[in-house]
Formats: sequence, C-alpha cells, structure tokens
Amino acid sequence: MSIAPAIDRATIEQIVRELVLKQVGGPPGKSELVVSVSARHVHLTEEHVETLFGPGHKLTPMKDLYQEGFYAAEETVMVVGPGRRRMLPTVRILGPTRPRSQVELAFTDGISLGIDMPVRQSGKIDGTPGCVLVGPAGVVELKEGVIRAERHVHMSPQDAAYYGVKTGDRMRLRVVSSCTTTFEDLLARAEEKIKLEVHLDTDEGNAADIDHASSVELLKP
Amino acid sequence: MSIAPAIDRATIEQIVRELVLKQVGGPPGKSELVVSVSARHVHLTEEHVETLFGPGHKLTPMKDLYQEGFYAAEETVMVVGPGRRRMLPTVRILGPTRPRSQVELAFTDGISLGIDMPVRQSGKIDGTPGCVLVGPAGVVELKEGVIRAERHVHMSPQDAAYYGVKTGDRMRLRVVSSCTTTFEDLLARAEEKIKLEVHLDTDEGNAADIDHASSVELLKP
Repeated sequence: MSIAPAIDRATIEQIVRELVLKQVGGPPGKSELVVSVSARHVHLTEEHVETLFGPGHKLTPMKDLYQEGFYAAEETVMVVGPGRRRMLPTVRILGPTRPRSQVELAFTDGISLGIDMPVRQSGKIDGTPGCVLVGPAGVVELKEGVIRAERHVHMSPQDAAYYGVKTGDRMRLRVVSSCTTTFEDLLARAEEKIKLEVHLDTDEGNAADIDHASSVELLKP
Repeated sequence: MSIAPAIDRATIEQIVRELVLKQVGGPPGKSELVVSVSARHVHLTEEHVETLFGPGHKLTPMKDLYQEGFYAAEETVMVVGPGRRRMLPTVRILGPTRPRSQVELAFTDGISLGIDMPVRQSGKIDGTPGCVLVGPAGVVELKEGVIRAERHVHMSPQDAAYYGVKTGDRMRLRVVSSCTTTFEDLLARAEEKIKLEVHLDTDEGNAADIDHASSVELLKP
C-alpha cells in the first residue's frame, strides 16, 4: 500500500480532495484499490456555466481526477443556502459539464448552510433541495440538486466479476487507522473503461482519519 | 428504540449537539444505550474563565448534558487558528471547569482552522497543538490542548460487567441508517455513577447519518 503525498490540509477545502489510498497487489485479476475523498463540489450544465461565468465561457481544467476525462476546474462558485443568510464562498466546479446541475455537500457543509439534504446517488436529484449559485457574471437559482452523494465504488465489469457483484449491489469498505471504521451500504457501479475507485465524502474520510490510514479493504456485504 | 426530538440542524453547530439515540430494553442487566454527538466545544480552567470573561466570572449553565453534573454553558469563545488567519467565532464552553483547558474539534473544524490535530483521549493533551481563545474580557493563548476526542463509551462498572469489558478495552458501535457505519476502536471507560453513553464527534455522526438512524448496537471487538 502507498499513500499519495499529503495535500496541504489547509487548502483541502479549496480544491477537490482526492486523497488516494492505494492497496497494491493481491491475486491475479484484483485491481489496485483507490479510495478518494471528495470535498464539496458542483457539477454544472453548459448553460449554467455561461450564466455564471459569461457567454461562451468554457471550464478550465486545473487538476485531473483519477477517472479519465474528469477534472477539477479552475472555476469556483459561491453556494448560498435557504433564506440567503449563509454561504460557502468558493465551491469547486468539476468538469466536464453535465445534463443537470448538481451540488454535492457533506452533511457538515449542509448544516453550516442550513440545508437538510437527502443522501442520493449522483444524478438522482428529483425533489431534492435547491440553492443559489453566484458566479462572477451571474446567478443561478437551482430549484433542486443539492445532495449528499451516496458512498459508492466505481469499477470495471472485470472488477465486478472479481468481487462477484453487479451494479446496484452493496459492498463494505473497511478503513484501518487510529479510528478504524467500516462503511457499509457502499453502492457498486460497474462500467466499461472505469477504474476501481471508492468515493467517500469529507465527513466519512475525516471520521475514519483516512489521512493516516494504514490499509483499506473492499468487502462484500 | 426512540429518537429524541430533532434539534434544529441550523443551530446544531451553535450548541452542543447531543443527539440521542436510545436503544431501550433488552435482557435484565442491559442498560439503555445513548449515543451522543458532541459538536466542537471548549473546556476551561477557572483561571481561563476569568481571563476570558472577567474577574470573578462563573460559567452559566444553559443546557444539562446526559451525564449528571455536566452542562453546556451560555458562554462561547472565538477559537483562532495558527497564523491567526482563520477562526471559529462561537465555540460553546462545557462546564464544570477543569484542571486544564482543552479544545475538542472534529477534523472538519481543524481543517477549516488549519490545525492538524491528533486523536486523543480527553485530558491527554501533552504535545498537542495550541490555539488562541478570544473572549469578551480577554485572550488566552493555549500552548497545547487542541484535540480530536477519541470516540469512546462511558459506562458504570455494572455495564462493564454486562459487556465483559474494562476501562481501556475497545468496543464497536454499529449505527444502522441509510449510511450504515461501524465505528471500531471505541474506548471503554467505566466509572461509578456514570450512565452508558457513546460519544462521537460531528464528522462521525454525519458520516453515519445518525439523525436518521433506525438502530444502534454496542458490540465487543
């Protein structure tokens, strides 16, 4: 197992925190396991990018994410909560753009904004709370789309066969640290051309002290 | 099992969050299990209370905690991080006063302040980071005392006998919710006149979505 160079913790909340714990090796057919901790972030439609940053604006990739083609953008937006009394000033945008805009926060973020969020699979935002996004060129009022992303594990069909699971199944992730924690209800999502990667949010990563973890194990329910 | 009336989540970070999940009943000798989520808070010496709030000042109890004799005070302090660039404006003080002052934060709080905290048992603060506390009447520079409190379970000697553990042993807490999570390394602390109560921090409570938990189980390692 190797742990990627530590990101300056003071800046973690400013960029997407992709703290990577790799579990290398194992029997043939077992992929390297990467656990990433996603800080709060926003996905936008092309239209909303233009509203917030100006006509014709395209997102500027700043940092590649682990899955090919995905990136943290240079751009950030302000996320304003209900009643417009509280806000998070610089929430990172992830690219590329999507068919629907979506804000992914940890519960700690939601509490500080005054938003009572549901736990949802990414993209399943019908009936979720909204918020206001403020950019340098304009404002977007999202009627819905604020969620806590359900903990999940991306994998290839080959990984799914190795673990004996299919999309929609639940797995467990055990993080061994000074605060050892087992996350259950981990949603399996198998797709072609996707690498094995668990996504947790900052509450989950912090609860398990994943920065100082000595190992991680992906297990069936 | 019963769940206490929900505290307004928007105010959770302002007061001590003592969200209580009670597991009632069970065989004779099994106590009711209460799980409390402690938001960031400060313990002060009498001397520091006077420095921060004025000569002769005594803490004013605002809300009783579950363990007899302990309370959240009306008073709050500002906690300022290293370099004095970032702060948490209103961190609740818990009473009664103690022989040493101590600041208990979740890792999410520490990251926002720029403090890299160790996980410590309450009171074991030698060599931990410090911070600056600002009150209405004065300022205290703590040389050490900022920790993430290690997850733990208080109990009576009778509870310890029931579970077959002693002070210093480790247990597990399984929280069943939409984000079911098992917290290992739960430190057992048995003392006379203490009720059975697990203490988690806000990162842990949020990671497990404890506000919407359907049950909790306390287990041996």
